[in-house]
Amino acid sequence: MSFHLTLIGIGTGNPEHLTLQAIRAMNAQDLILIPHKGAGKDDLAGLRRAICDEVLTSDTTRIVEFDLPVRNEATLDYRQRVDDWHDAIAAVWQATILAHGGARRVGLLVWGDPSLYDSTLRIAARLEPQPSIEVIPGVTSVHALTAAHATVLNEIGAPFTVTTGRRLRDEGWPPGVDTVVVMLDAGGAFREIDATGVHIWWGAYVGMKEQIIIEGPLAEVADEIMDARLRARAAHGWIMDVYLMRRT
Amino acid sequence: MSFHLTLIGIGTGNPEHLTLQAIRAMNAQDLILIPHKGAGKDDLAGLRRAICDEVLTSDTTRIVEFDLPVRNEATLDYRQRVDDWHDAIAAVWQATILAHGGARRVGLLVWGDPSLYDSTLRIAARLEPQPSIEVIPGVTSVHALTAAHATVLNEIGAPFTVTTGRRLRDEGWPPGVDTVVVMLDAGGAFREIDATGVHIWWGAYVGMKEQIIIEGPLAEVADEIMDARLRARAAHGWIMDVYLMRRT
Repeated sequence: MSFHLTLIGIGTGNPEHLTLQAIRAMNAQDLILIPHKGAGKDDLAGLRRAICDEVLTSDTTRIVEFDLPVRNEATLDYRQRVDDWHDAIAAVWQATILAHGGARRVGLLVWGDPSLYDSTLRIAARLEPQPSIEVIPGVTSVHALTAAHATVLNEIGAPFTVTTGRRLRDEGWPPGVDTVVVMLDAGGAFREIDATGVHIWWGAYVGMKEQIIIEGPLAEVADEIMDARLRARAAHGWIMDVYLMRRT
Repeated sequence: MSFHLTLIGIGTGNPEHLTLQAIRAMNAQDLILIPHKGAGKDDLAGLRRAICDEVLTSDTTRIVEFDLPVRNEATLDYRQRVDDWHDAIAAVWQATILAHGGARRVGLLVWGDPSLYDSTLRIAARLEPQPSIEVIPGVTSVHALTAAHATVLNEIGAPFTVTTGRRLRDEGWPPGVDTVVVMLDAGGAFREIDATGVHIWWGAYVGMKEQIIIEGPLAEVADEIMDARLRARAAHGWIMDVYLMRRT
């Protein structure tokens, strides 16, 4: 069974982040696969369905949910755990597509952009036989963050580094740059660095109606951010945040 | 005169990169300012007009072109030259808006996203009195590049640095990262680094119908990229390229 797989960047949860290209791609699919994570998780399946409802006009596009496998936390090695998980997801995709025989065009909706801290392309590479793959770029949470703050990412002609909360925590401020963007922070990695002269632009649920943003000198707003983060997480059951820091 | 200024990220030249949010914002403006650079430059005014023609449905939105001031190359200091230029652009915006008295909502169309190597926010900060400012995020050339190559930006959990051709040329490979994205390269800065173990994903006019992409081991494709770049520049009169490099 050969098919064409389209990874569609859909922005950060605001249906208005969809591009015309994404909407056209969605309507061109036979099948759109939506992962279901289960209650208590950051289950955004409902939001993906709402986005589909809003822009799907094609009668021939079917939306199918699949249960997203969970990571086996008993596997101690991080990379092995992730690799096994990706294998399991690829197997579920394959089974779901097979169960809907005849789907020649299959679409996956990716938050933000499929190139940025997202595994969909890596999972797709596991499919056998390998489908032809197409990627539709999307608005990322990095740009939803800077837009919300009406601020720039880089200083004139200067570089910046995009990293993870884990890296910032383990390795400190990245070398050679005065601007850093932090993604995938399990919470408060910014408290692990020297706050002297550091300004932070923080946001959670950026671009969505639940959006919260806070900015200021890191030393002054770190506690406020931690409080806002805790409260929001309790209220929504999940949180996704991102932040920009600049050293002067 | 107080007004509201909206910076609208419009993607990389493909009208299909427009988000629903961008289209709505464009239609909400009284005035959309389009810079005109003059013949022989990368004059994308025509493309901006074509994008407006395609999505503007509001009868009350006027499109006004203004002549973009040129940088005074006699000013030797780079930062001073850029600062003076930004002052001049702000003055032209102000005069153009005044000439269309009554414009309460003014929009500017920004290629890619207004936060990424773009000066529109910095120029807007010079306006007096200061308008209220709103930013609509857009698809950047970085993601148009990775989409065109169907590749990922970062390795799992790993950081990456976004920098300029000038920096790469002057300072070499950025410290602490194995992945680097290079923007604003006047041409071939990738030839200044040690190509051992480096893979490059290059693209020009990414997302546009003129798109050209080349990828491979840097040592093997560097000349091919330089050739393609020269020919494309001669054919179109301008070129804008971007590339991703990964060291293994």
